[in-house]
Parts: sequence; structure tokens; C-alpha cells
Amino acid sequence: MVEAPATEEGWFALHEFRSIDWDAWRNAPRHERDRAIEEGRSFLAHREALATAETGDSAVFSVIGHKADLLTIHFRPTLDALSTIERSFENTALAEFTTTESSYVSVTEVSGYVSDAYFEDDEAEIDDGLRRYIEGKLKPEMPDDEYVSFYPMSKRRGEEYNWYDLSFEDRADLMAGHGEVGKQYAGRIKQVIASSVGFDDHEWGVTLFGADPTDIKDIVYEMRFDEASSRYGEFGQFYVGRRFPPSDLGAYLAG
Amino acid sequence: MVEAPATEEGWFALHEFRSIDWDAWRNAPRHERDRAIEEGRSFLAHREALATAETGDSAVFSVIGHKADLLTIHFRPTLDALSTIERSFENTALAEFTTTESSYVSVTEVSGYVSDAYFEDDEAEIDDGLRRYIEGKLKPEMPDDEYVSFYPMSKRRGEEYNWYDLSFEDRADLMAGHGEVGKQYAGRIKQVIASSVGFDDHEWGVTLFGADPTDIKDIVYEMRFDEASSRYGEFGQFYVGRRFPPSDLGAYLAG
Amino acid sequence: MVEAPATEEGWFALHEFRSIDWDAWRNAPRHERDRAIEEGRSFLAHREALATAETGDSAVFSVIGHKADLLTIHFRPTLDALSTIERSFENTALAEFTTTESSYVSVTEVSGYVSDAYFEDDEAEIDDGLRRYIEGKLKPEMPDDEYVSFYPMSKRRGEEYNWYDLSFEDRADLMAGHGEVGKQYAGRIKQVIASSVGFDDHEWGVTLFGADPTDIKDIVYEMRFDEASSRYGEFGQFYVGRRFPPSDLGAYLAG
Amino acid sequence: MVEAPATEEGWFALHEFRSIDWDAWRNAPRHERDRAIEEGRSFLAHREALATAETGDSAVFSVIGHKADLLTIHFRPTLDALSTIERSFENTALAEFTTTESSYVSVTEVSGYVSDAYFEDDEAEIDDGLRRYIEGKLKPEMPDDEYVSFYPMSKRRGEEYNWYDLSFEDRADLMAGHGEVGKQYAGRIKQVIASSVGFDDHEWGVTLFGADPTDIKDIVYEMRFDEASSRYGEFGQFYVGRRFPPSDLGAYLAG
Amino acid sequence: MVEAPATEEGWFALHEFRSIDWDAWRNAPRHERDRAIEEGRSFLAHREALATAETGDSAVFSVIGHKADLLTIHFRPTLDALSTIERSFENTALAEFTTTESSYVSVTEVSGYVSDAYFEDDEAEIDDGLRRYIEGKLKPEMPDDEYVSFYPMSKRRGEEYNWYDLSFEDRADLMAGHGEVGKQYAGRIKQVIASSVGFDDHEWGVTLFGADPTDIKDIVYEMRFDEASSRYGEFGQFYVGRRFPPSDLGAYLAG
Repeated sequence: MVEAPATEEGWFALHEFRSIDWDAWRNAPRHERDRAIEEGRSFLAHREALATAETGDSAVFSVIGHKADLLTIHFRPTLDALSTIERSFENTALAEFTTTESSYVSVTEVSGYVSDAYFEDDEAEIDDGLRRYIEGKLKPEMPDDEYVSFYPMSKRRGEEYNWYDLSFEDRADLMAGHGEVGKQYAGRIKQVIASSVGFDDHEWGVTLFGADPTDIKDIVYEMRFDEASSRYGEFGQFYVGRRFPPSDLGAYLAG
Repeated sequence: MVEAPATEEGWFALHEFRSIDWDAWRNAPRHERDRAIEEGRSFLAHREALATAETGDSAVFSVIGHKADLLTIHFRPTLDALSTIERSFENTALAEFTTTESSYVSVTEVSGYVSDAYFEDDEAEIDDGLRRYIEGKLKPEMPDDEYVSFYPMSKRRGEEYNWYDLSFEDRADLMAGHGEVGKQYAGRIKQVIASSVGFDDHEWGVTLFGADPTDIKDIVYEMRFDEASSRYGEFGQFYVGRRFPPSDLGAYLAG
Repeated sequence: MVEAPATEEGWFALHEFRSIDWDAWRNAPRHERDRAIEEGRSFLAHREALATAETGDSAVFSVIGHKADLLTIHFRPTLDALSTIERSFENTALAEFTTTESSYVSVTEVSGYVSDAYFEDDEAEIDDGLRRYIEGKLKPEMPDDEYVSFYPMSKRRGEEYNWYDLSFEDRADLMAGHGEVGKQYAGRIKQVIASSVGFDDHEWGVTLFGADPTDIKDIVYEMRFDEASSRYGEFGQFYVGRRFPPSDLGAYLAG
Repeated sequence: MVEAPATEEGWFALHEFRSIDWDAWRNAPRHERDRAIEEGRSFLAHREALATAETGDSAVFSVIGHKADLLTIHFRPTLDALSTIERSFENTALAEFTTTESSYVSVTEVSGYVSDAYFEDDEAEIDDGLRRYIEGKLKPEMPDDEYVSFYPMSKRRGEEYNWYDLSFEDRADLMAGHGEVGKQYAGRIKQVIASSVGFDDHEWGVTLFGADPTDIKDIVYEMRFDEASSRYGEFGQFYVGRRFPPSDLGAYLAG
Repeated sequence: MVEAPATEEGWFALHEFRSIDWDAWRNAPRHERDRAIEEGRSFLAHREALATAETGDSAVFSVIGHKADLLTIHFRPTLDALSTIERSFENTALAEFTTTESSYVSVTEVSGYVSDAYFEDDEAEIDDGLRRYIEGKLKPEMPDDEYVSFYPMSKRRGEEYNWYDLSFEDRADLMAGHGEVGKQYAGRIKQVIASSVGFDDHEWGVTLFGADPTDIKDIVYEMRFDEASSRYGEFGQFYVGRRFPPSDLGAYLAG
């Protein structure tokens, strides 16, 4: 059996994809819509406000296309906190006008492929820059007012190309090459990688943030030529959207 | 890692597939139907009228078969404009009688395979013909009164035939051969290619327009024998329909 | 690139699979049921009556199993005529009690594999027998009171067995062998082959008619051993049913 | 082209999987529930009572798990009889409380693999034991008060392992080995094999009956190691349940 | 044909995944909600209380994400007991507010791979430690207040890597290696393996329990590098949740 990478986990993540019941919305009396907007706004704003470097982060995004209208992403230190958030939303008047179309459960993760020093060195010897880098991966912040792309992925276990049959070194080399492509997008694209092994249907959830949506298209396309993706990547559904502040919820629903 | 092609992006595209709730339509009082027709017509006509070479294009099509009744295609300079259109439609009385069955989000794209001169030459040296050709790909117009076929596609990453493992030259050769087939249909078929990498579930959305639907069948069939498709193409669902002017919406709904 | 076969197209085909809303039917007052039966009968009878060798053909079938209750097949010279039929049905009182579960859009086709003389000879030299044979393929009639089987299919583009990579001669040989099996069922099974390339999700729709349903089972099973199917056939869902005259619609719905 | 086996067909089979609308059931007044139980019981009892060695067989089973609550299996000499049964059920008050989740249409079949003597000898020379064996396969009875497992299956047409590319002798050998495993379960497991080629989405429907559900698990598991299954079997969804007499319908619905 | 392992079966298992109809819950009057909570609590508490080492075990879990809200797991000596539990729940007022989204039917199993001594020795010679170990596998208890992960899986029957084509010794070696990984999680992860061959759509259902959800992620991830999984494992959907006592049902539903 080949060696599995060491991993360290950070915040748990819940991605929720909801559609608006536009027929019910259109026909609801104004005071019901106002209440739904206010309770939805308040719920989202509180989740964002409570979120700090210690306690997680939350954000809401509009999603383009029929698969969903709203995406909410929550990062929290425990699965229980995510479960509470999921159920608390159902107590808001906004929930009456939404249906949960999909979701994704994962936990942020760094692995020995990308930071072996972090895993192998004495804790005292890890330099502060690396420590901050790892911290940023495990407790990620979500940038304001940017586009988002989410997709789940797994590594292929084909009869010829089987990621889980490769030696640790081969996998580490492939991940390093993959990282090189990513570095070219530094400052333009921020990514959050979270493991869903044992939690959800693919092995990882990938969330990309960027101020220009064509950068998102470009990085995913360019990485597809990288062996780690071209030979070993298997992708689920893709969602694209844009973050908005909870105070804009009323405007969003007004069309 | 093999070389990814240079790309340039133009308008973002939203394809929306909607079905009519015929039971509700049949049972609605005449004034409600009239209002739905008028608001739907007005919405579509305004989207088409506002569209210019600078601001995009919009069109509505009847779709044959159970997968949808109406297809609307919108090209716009930003994802935000598409998001607004999507939600604005929900404010019309026509939306009450429709369900969004599917959609596709993409961005028009030209790549270095087909126009390397465009990407490699000094900008000043690019001749006007090429510039107009590229412009037509990035800011496409939709022809009146013609049949449409839409399908999403990806390039295969099989264990033996893996597009993303081929050298740039091999891919460029395959795309050139693919283009040769297309040229035989010049004047009869117009195609819009838009990338959905990072945005939607396949890698590209293909929209074909033609005055004769058998030309659509013929070009897709003939291209299937081309190696770029036969060995490397993976196709999603196909939709076929015909454009109609928004002023015909009432007649369309009358059966 | 290998050679694509020449093709000639005839009538467009629409297969519609509908289920009955039995709960609504059971609970509807008699006069509503009577009206639904009468309007449904009239719609179907008129579509059949209007159909002639010049204008197409229509038929209705009961379907066994949960996938659908009714199949209607329409052959018409244009896609537009099919679109009109599809929407006209929604104006009948019967539509209130049905849901469209699936459909298939295609166009009848003959190809150079089976009748190269037809495509290569001067038109004047084509003998009348061949001309009538081709005409029967392009403008097919539907036999009365017989069983029907419908299924969509594509040709495999596997990494080892790729139909679209074979030479024209190899494909023609395989199709000829396939035709030999079919000839053994002459007089017992009638088949309609229609291309859905660019129109629907598989490449062809196959409709088989026969007075004995075990003949349908036998021909599909025997052909599966033929290389054209065993190595290169990929099949979608299968439906089986029996034609009935529109005048029997009331009896059909009575159980 | 390799040789297809000779086949002989018996009764047509309809498997119907229905779920109970428990919310409607819970809320229905007692007299409606009583009527539904009585009409359902009567429908099922009559279908069973009418069934004889000449006219078919019928039985009802409770199904464990969410895929269905009730399975009814009907064997009849014609597809038309099955179509009538399917629609007649919709006239009962029980139908109001059920939804048809799935179904399977097939015809019992014996083939030249397992009984070549039957197909090759003069009819006069076939011994009575074989004749009775074949008769039992083509006109199967359903045992009382036993567990049932149903699953559809097809033979693989892979690029390396392709059942339909094997010689008749190789297939006959594989089927003989398969039969050897089955014989070890004689007296404990009874199986009904019915072809659905041209009728439904897989090639065969398999129905197993046994007094001990672990025998069902054991025979399917053991057969999976047999080459006919391990290399060539492709399986659909599995359902497990238990037969009950129609007179127990009320008790079944009472929970 | 290669040798199938000897197996011994214990309790049958039913996993039920239900979602809450939050819209109905939100709008229900308080007394209806109270009754639903009380009947749900009582149903679950009685199922747990009645469960002993002789009669089975039951537990309820909250599930994170859209696939379900509640998971109930029942172990019982017979399929009939599970069928009764499934239907009894529908008689509670809580059922009105839930929909069954998915389920899994299986039977706990030990096989000759892991305990050949148990299957090959005289019964008298089996030592008490092994007997207790086996007993714990066949009649598993569910730990309190811990996280749960459930997923169905099958062994691959690929054209190159085919589990069911391997010799018994090769399979036993692979299972032994698999077990080695598991032993590293002793005390942290408890697993229940149950066969669903002939009963449900995959071959086994796997249920993991652990006090720390990252242990669940880690064991599944590490095992994926083991050949028994990397080359031969095929996985269905994954669910993650946490056990709670029935007395907390009201708090759970309050959000």
C-alpha cells in the first residue's frame, strides 16, 4: 500500500444552494415579502458579523442559471455549528420562499504534498510565514464583492490512471506542478480546498474567488492541461455566482 | 504539462430552457393570459431591442419535444447583466406560467488553435479581416427566423484518448481539420462557441443556427467522423427549436 | 478523417410519451371525462385522417409499464408541423389529464451504407423498385393494430471500438450484415429509422412494428449478436406498446 | 456474426412497484380507508384466484425500503392482459393512495444454452421430465409466504469482455457453470428468468423466491464469482420484499 | 470459478434517510408540532428501549446537508421486524412532516476472509475471544453521542481489475491489508459492515461511528490508498450526521 499524505484540518464548510420560489414570491403580499427580506437579511448579516478569524466566516452569493438562485457558504469550527445554521435558517420567513437544491459538506485541509516541512519539522521549527500560510488555508476568509465558482472533485481511480496507486513522490510532484499553475493567478484568484471524504459524494469541494470571472474560467481551463487534472481529475457540477452584502437581499429579490 | 491555448473572451451567454405550465394556461382567465402574453412579449422585445453590437443580443425560440417549450438566449458583456435578466423575467406575468427546466452559462471564446496570428502578432499587425472575424465570434449576432440547435460538450480525458494530454500542435491540427468540415457549411450554418469551464457542467456550449434543420443534422453528423469529435468529443443533451419574433408569442401559446 | 455516408432525409418524427393522471381521472365528473375523451379522440382521429402519403402519418399506442401510458407518433414534412401538433394537443380537454414524460425528435433517413446505388447513380438510372423502397423509408406508414417498440440508440465511440473511426467500407459491411438479420424478419417486423443527430440525445430513434411482440424481442436479441450492435451499439430506454384506433380511447381510459 | 441461441417464450410478466401515500392514508376518513382496503384486496384476490396453470399467476409483496412499498407481479399469456390489469388497478379506491414508482415488462424465456435437447430434438423425442421442466420455466408459479428479490440485468458488451462476441459454445459453457451454482440452492431458491429485450431497459428481469432471505443474499453473492456474472453481468436496482395474502392488506396498511 | 468466501449473517439493518418539510413545520399550529414531537420521540425512544443484545438496536441521527435531515438506523433479527418498523413510523404524527428520501437494506455479515478459523474450525474449538468478536460484528451496538458516516459500496468488476475474478487468497490478502489500516483507528472508529447483495443497489452498506468527525474523514481517506479500495472499491453517496437522544427531538426541530 502506498503512503497516504499527512493532513491537518481546519474549519468545516457548508455550501448550500437554494432556489427562490418565484411564483410564491410574486404572489406574496408586500408585508410578507418585507418580513422575509428582513429576516433573511438579518440571518445572513448576523452569520457574517459573528464570523471572525476565531469563529468562522459566512457569505451569500447570487448564482447564475437554473441550478440555484442563492449560495450561502459557512465556515465553522464544528459540524454541529453548521447543523445549527442549516436548521436556524428554516426558522426565517425567507425560508418559506426557498428550496434547498443542493449542498456540500467538507472540512478545510492542508496535506503533506504541499507543505511537508509543516508536517515533518518540529513544531518549534516551523517558520512564521509557513504557519500563516497554513492558517490561511485552514481558516479561510471570503473576499467581498467577488465572483465565486464551486465544484466538487475526486481523483480518478481508473484501470490505467489510478491516483491512489501512485507513489507519494509521484503524487507530490503532480501536486507541485498543479500548484505552479495556481501561482500564476496569485492575487487574482483565491481558492479554498476542503476534503469531503466520508462526508459527501466527491472527495473535495473547491471554491474559487476572483474579481474577474474570466480569470476563473482561465485557471480552471489551464489547470485542466496539468497532469494532476488531465489524467486524474474527475469533476462534478459547476456553479458560478457573485457575492452580495446581505443588505442587498431586497434588491436581489426585486429582480 | 502541455501548453494551454491562448484565449480571448467576448460576451457572456445565458441559455434558458423553460416549459409552459399548459394546465395553468388552459385554465387561466383570458385577461390573465393577455397580461402574461403582453408582459412576456414586452420583456423579450425590450431585451432584443436593447441589444446592439455594443450591448449584446437576445432571442426567443420555440423548442420541439418535452425537454422545454421556450429557449431564450442572451449575450451580454457581463455576468451581472445576465443575472439581472434572469431575475427580471420572474417579475413578468408570463413567468407564472413557466418553469425553468435547464440553463447554460458560458462566455464566447476564440482560442490560439484557430487564430494564432491574432494571439501572436503585434496588435498593430493584425489585419482587419481577421479582426472582424474574431469580433464576430466574440460578439455574435443571432440570425432571424432560423432553426437553432444547442448542446454542451467537453473534450474527452479517457485513459487512451485524452485531449488534454495531446501536444498543442496535435490539438491545433485536429481543430483545423474540424474547421475544414465547418467551412463546407459556410453560409448555411452559423455557430457560436462559448466556454463554460468553471461556470457550468460541460466545457463548452455550442449553438448552431440554420435556415434548414437538415443542415444542422448534417453538420453535426459529418463532424462526428472528424477525429476531434470521434475520438475526443463528449456531448450532453441536444435541443432543437426555431426562432420567432416576440410579437408572435400570443400565437405560439395559442397552439 | 474517414468518409461520412451520404444521406437523404424524409419526414420529421415526433414521439411523445404521456402518462395519465389517474387520480384526477378517477375523481373527474363524468361530463369532464366525456369531453376529454371526445376532444382527445377527435384530435387523434384528425391527425390520423389528415395524414396521407404526402402529408405524413400519425398513430396512438397504449404503453405497458410505468414509464408512460400513451405514445403518439407523428411523421410530418416539417419540424414546424410537429411543433404545432405538440402545442395543439395542449388545447384539448384530454391534456388536462396527461403529463408528457418523454419525447423524441428525429428525421427519417436513408444513407449510402444501404443504398449506394441510390446516391451514386444518375437520378434517371435509379430503378423504380429502389425508388419505392427509399420512399417507403423516408415516408413510412404505420401499420394498424400492431405492437410497437421504440428505443433511441447511438454508435459507440469507445477507446477501442469506435464506429466513427472505421473506414466507410468497414461500416458499410457491418451495416450490410445488420441488414441480413433484418431480412429474416421481413413481413413480420417493419422498422423506421430516423436520425436525431443535432436534434435529440441519442443519434437515432428506432421504431419497430410487429403483430407478435415476441418477434420484436427476437429481432432485437438476434441483432445484438451482430457486430454492428454487439461492438458498436449503445441503447437508451425501451418502450413497448400497442396501437389502438382513436375511437377506442374511451375504452382505454375505462381500464 | 456469432450464433444467437434459440429461445422459446411463455408468459409475459409485469412487475409493478408502488409506494403508499402515507400522508393521504393517515388523513383519510375510516370509510375511505375501508373502501380502499376492500377494493385493493378484492382486486388482488381476483387476480390471484383467476390465475391458473393456463391463465397465469399474480401475487402481492411488501417491499422494504424507500424505493417502494408494494410489489405486484403478474404473469399472463399476452401483453394485452397485462395492460388491462395495469389500467384496471387504477379504477380501485386503493389506487388513490398509491404512486407507481417503477415497473418491469418481460416475457419468460428458455434458451438453447440450457436445454439444447429441447430445441434440437424432434418434438416427439423430448422426454416428459424435460418438457415439465421447460413448462415450469415458461409458466412459473409463485410460492406462498416467501421472500422475493427482483433485479434487472444485462450482459456486458465491454471493449474486452463482450458477451455478444463470444462463440455460442463459450456462452453455453458459462451458462452451464452458472447453472451449477444455482443447483446448490435447489429446494431453497426458485428463480424466474424473463427477457425484456426490446421491451424494457435491461435485457432480463430476474425474480428470486426463498423462505430464508439470507439464501437470496447467498445465491446472488456466490453467483457473482461465476464468470458469467463476474465478467459479463451488469445489474440494475435490487428490490427485496415478502409475499402476503391479499386478505392481509388491511393489516399491512395499519403498520 | 474462483471460491466465494463463507459468510455468517447476523441482524438485518434498515437505514432510513428522511427530510423535514420545514414549510409545513413552520406553519403548523403549536399543538400539532407538540404532538408530532411527542409521537416521534416516543416512537424513537421505544425502538431504542426495546433494543437489547437479543433484539437489535435503534438510533436517530441529525444529517448535515440537503440530502436528508434525519437518519434512523435499526438493527433487527428479521426483515419482517424492519418492515413493521418502517410502516409503524408512518402512523406517527411526526411522519406528516417528513419525506423518506433514501434508505438502505442490508444484513450484518462476517466472512471467511477475516476469520477463517471461525468458519473452518470445529465449533467447539473456536475460542471465546473470537466468538465475542464475531458476535460484536453480527449484533453491533451503536455508540451514544457520536458522529456517523454511511455509504454503500461494491467491489469493482472492471475489465482489468475485477475483484470477483481474483483468487480467494488474493482477496483474503487484500482484505487483511485493509484490516491493518482499520486497526490503527481502534478505539476511535467503530464500523458496521452489512451485505446488501440481492437486497439493495450496492453490495455492502458501511456505517462508521466516531467521536471526532475528522477521524471518519481520515480513515476513509487512508483506506482509499489501500489496494482493496484504490483498485477495487466503488462507492455510492456519503452521508454524515450525529446521534442525538430521542428526547432532544424537540430541540432539533426548533433549529
